Amino acid sequence: MKTILILGAGKSSTYLIDYLLESAHSKNRKLIIADLSKEIAEKKIKNHPNARAEPIILEQENSRKDLIGQSDVVISMLPAFLHPIIAKDCLAMGKHFFSASYESEELRQLEPEIKAKNLLFLNECGLDPGIDHMSAMKIIESEKAKGHEIIGFKSYTGGLLSPESEDNPWKYKFTWNPRNVVLAGQGTSRFIRNGRYKYIPYHMLFRRLENIHFEGLGDFEGYPNRDSLSYRKIYGLDNIPTLLRGTLRRAGFCQSWDVFVQLGMTDDSFQMDLPEGFTYRMFINSFLPFHEDQKAEAKLKDLLPWINDEIMDKIKWLGFFSNYILPKTKGSPAAILQEILEERWTLNPEDKDMIVMQHQFEVKTPSGMKKITSSLVCKGQNQEYTAMAKTVGLPLAIAVDLFLEGKIDIRGLKIPIIPQIYSPILEALESEGIIFEDKEEQIG
Amino acid sequence: MKTILILGAGKSSTYLIDYLLESAHSKNRKLIIADLSKEIAEKKIKNHPNARAEPIILEQENSRKDLIGQSDVVISMLPAFLHPIIAKDCLAMGKHFFSASYESEELRQLEPEIKAKNLLFLNECGLDPGIDHMSAMKIIESEKAKGHEIIGFKSYTGGLLSPESEDNPWKYKFTWNPRNVVLAGQGTSRFIRNGRYKYIPYHMLFRRLENIHFEGLGDFEGYPNRDSLSYRKIYGLDNIPTLLRGTLRRAGFCQSWDVFVQLGMTDDSFQMDLPEGFTYRMFINSFLPFHEDQKAEAKLKDLLPWINDEIMDKIKWLGFFSNYILPKTKGSPAAILQEILEERWTLNPEDKDMIVMQHQFEVKTPSGMKKITSSLVCKGQNQEYTAMAKTVGLPLAIAVDLFLEGKIDIRGLKIPIIPQIYSPILEALESEGIIFEDKEEQIG
Repeated sequence: MKTILILGAGKSSTYLIDYLLESAHSKNRKLIIADLSKEIAEKKIKNHPNARAEPIILEQENSRKDLIGQSDVVISMLPAFLHPIIAKDCLAMGKHFFSASYESEELRQLEPEIKAKNLLFLNECGLDPGIDHMSAMKIIESEKAKGHEIIGFKSYTGGLLSPESEDNPWKYKFTWNPRNVVLAGQGTSRFIRNGRYKYIPYHMLFRRLENIHFEGLGDFEGYPNRDSLSYRKIYGLDNIPTLLRGTLRRAGFCQSWDVFVQLGMTDDSFQMDLPEGFTYRMFINSFLPFHEDQKAEAKLKDLLPWINDEIMDKIKWLGFFSNYILPKTKGSPAAILQEILEERWTLNPEDKDMIVMQHQFEVKTPSGMKKITSSLVCKGQNQEYTAMAKTVGLPLAIAVDLFLEGKIDIRGLKIPIIPQIYSPILEALESEGIIFEDKEEQIG
Repeated sequence: MKTILILGAGKSSTYLIDYLLESAHSKNRKLIIADLSKEIAEKKIKNHPNARAEPIILEQENSRKDLIGQSDVVISMLPAFLHPIIAKDCLAMGKHFFSASYESEELRQLEPEIKAKNLLFLNECGLDPGIDHMSAMKIIESEKAKGHEIIGFKSYTGGLLSPESEDNPWKYKFTWNPRNVVLAGQGTSRFIRNGRYKYIPYHMLFRRLENIHFEGLGDFEGYPNRDSLSYRKIYGLDNIPTLLRGTLRRAGFCQSWDVFVQLGMTDDSFQMDLPEGFTYRMFINSFLPFHEDQKAEAKLKDLLPWINDEIMDKIKWLGFFSNYILPKTKGSPAAILQEILEERWTLNPEDKDMIVMQHQFEVKTPSGMKKITSSLVCKGQNQEYTAMAKTVGLPLAIAVDLFLEGKIDIRGLKIPIIPQIYSPILEALESEGIIFEDKEEQIG
């Protein structure tokens, strides 16, 4: 009987736990679900006889090692910064480690030891990173096998709302870590386009958009992620002239979000210490020039003349011109903005989220150029069974299942860019309704 | 016989050394000038019998302590990051310490020990910080003594070119650390205006300018420094409704500089690794959107539509549309930009620099409101005897002279905001031609 330890029983673990519970009896497996709150873990188990909930105190080595010691495989759904600690515990105790987080430099330093102990440490096996790697690599390797040359690859992912739940003017609510959404894009984005390096600073990012269309869903806009250049090596496309990875938002979102960026409200580099009783209106005003008698609305339009009525409505809808008291007065501008947004952008119980992903390849073939468009749309059921939780959790659950079945027998520090890993996972994901629609057109 | 150790014999030490050498014989003092390069130190001494040059290896404690041990007072003209090391040496050996750098948190931690050993550690005694503190405090304390209330204080400083040397379209050359000039303003600037906190993000900074006029010199533009708020406490103006400190540039400079800011060329947060043979034109192009057939010039104007012919000429003058090879291809965008600028913005031997400083006070008096404008203009003689070196070096030289004469007898960790320090220094600066012109007008 094999034991799987799942660390973290939050929203993003729902599908992961359900999937592994379902076959736990027939496959003779035990699950330990550990969370800071034993109650939360217990709720996820639904009295399944093959599972038990445990509290975990992450700061205490004993608490971690006690649970890790009882297991064969550890899946961490904890925040990424905790992964080096968990990974080191696993290494010390000879346990396999799975996560949906980026493979960090700290983990890379453990690589020789992971190999030496014949363990598998599989990271980046969620949605983005995760499904993006797997679905892209499948096409890349298939085209390469045909002797075709990939000369362009753009890939966009977004965690958004299903159209029926787009019930606010932003057509957006938080379906994932709000802090990451507020800080998204900071730094300089870099990619390569037609053989030319391109750099976009943060304050320009939300204006340099590409329109991305999904059949039946309409238009989205994509902005480039921070570092697309490093993916040339990862995907084995070292000399590709165009490679860009980006994030999707509903059409119209970015221009309005840019208001906050331009004003400096997304800055996380210094702490504000505003007087108690500071209002939303005072907050936006503190980012606007002083004027003897002009109101904040007029000053905003003067400062950013491209603001139209639609954008203004979105800003107003968030309460920025009201005399409501700020929910938070100490913290970075970004932290205060996040608190404001969380009051309005939270999913209702019946809201459905939606994951959209699209790969666009330009491929040189003996019979000319073709374009491959590969699109994924995945809709959530409600606030708990979200598309985000599904697309992050299922690849991990499937990977662990395949691993315990012996169908993945590779060892070392890996990400899912090798066929042995991605082929069976993609296949299993299809059975779960996570299906890419591919389209090919001749373009020259 | 007292011994003064001067660490660093670079350009900024010229006036400092000359001033202290002049009275060394009559005041029975010895000077040790220590530099990485003994030759540079020797040149500054001009065979004066009371001085000697010494090489110093800053990484070696012995090398530092050998020289510090021979002296009574240490003046450090070294880069600011080295000051904690030197200050700790001085503390260990019971020597007084003087610098023109900001009082750092590390130095503040030494404060109890400095006091206990009855030493004076005087920092921020150059131009900015230095002369700005002293000249402001003189007016602030004089108005307070009259029972007047200061309700507004704006203070601007610039290190620029004397008009006769403004021989390029930017009317600017480096007269101080080029890296600081390239990175100036990064972060969010914060100040208070009419009782309202104001925050300006970097990418908005060079558009939110104030016009500052100097009689006989014409117009300058000022942008706010990073943190004006902390000066309320330093200057004893805790409840002042308006306080802003800023940097001056020649009118027209900032709008053109903003092109680099907007493009992301001043970013210092990531390393570029450009191919050898990359040209100026390719460099600017890498910050511009891709276009099938539009040239860089047209794309730049499309991206930043406010660029007029004058701005375009300045960009062109720096070579940005040429096919010259970049002088540097590895490093942050800011580092590459700096290298480009250093090729064009270097002082010629006969170029004269200029320091401009202006304080603007709004003062409530029993007979109504008045405005005090206090302005300093100081011109350099040539590339070596710069106004920058004069205004940074003389306050320090004078402070040490007064200290050794016993005219400054305060001890502890200090900045020159107390009358005992600033009054005699300002008086001595006047004899050296560093003179503020004050103007008072009734404004209500």
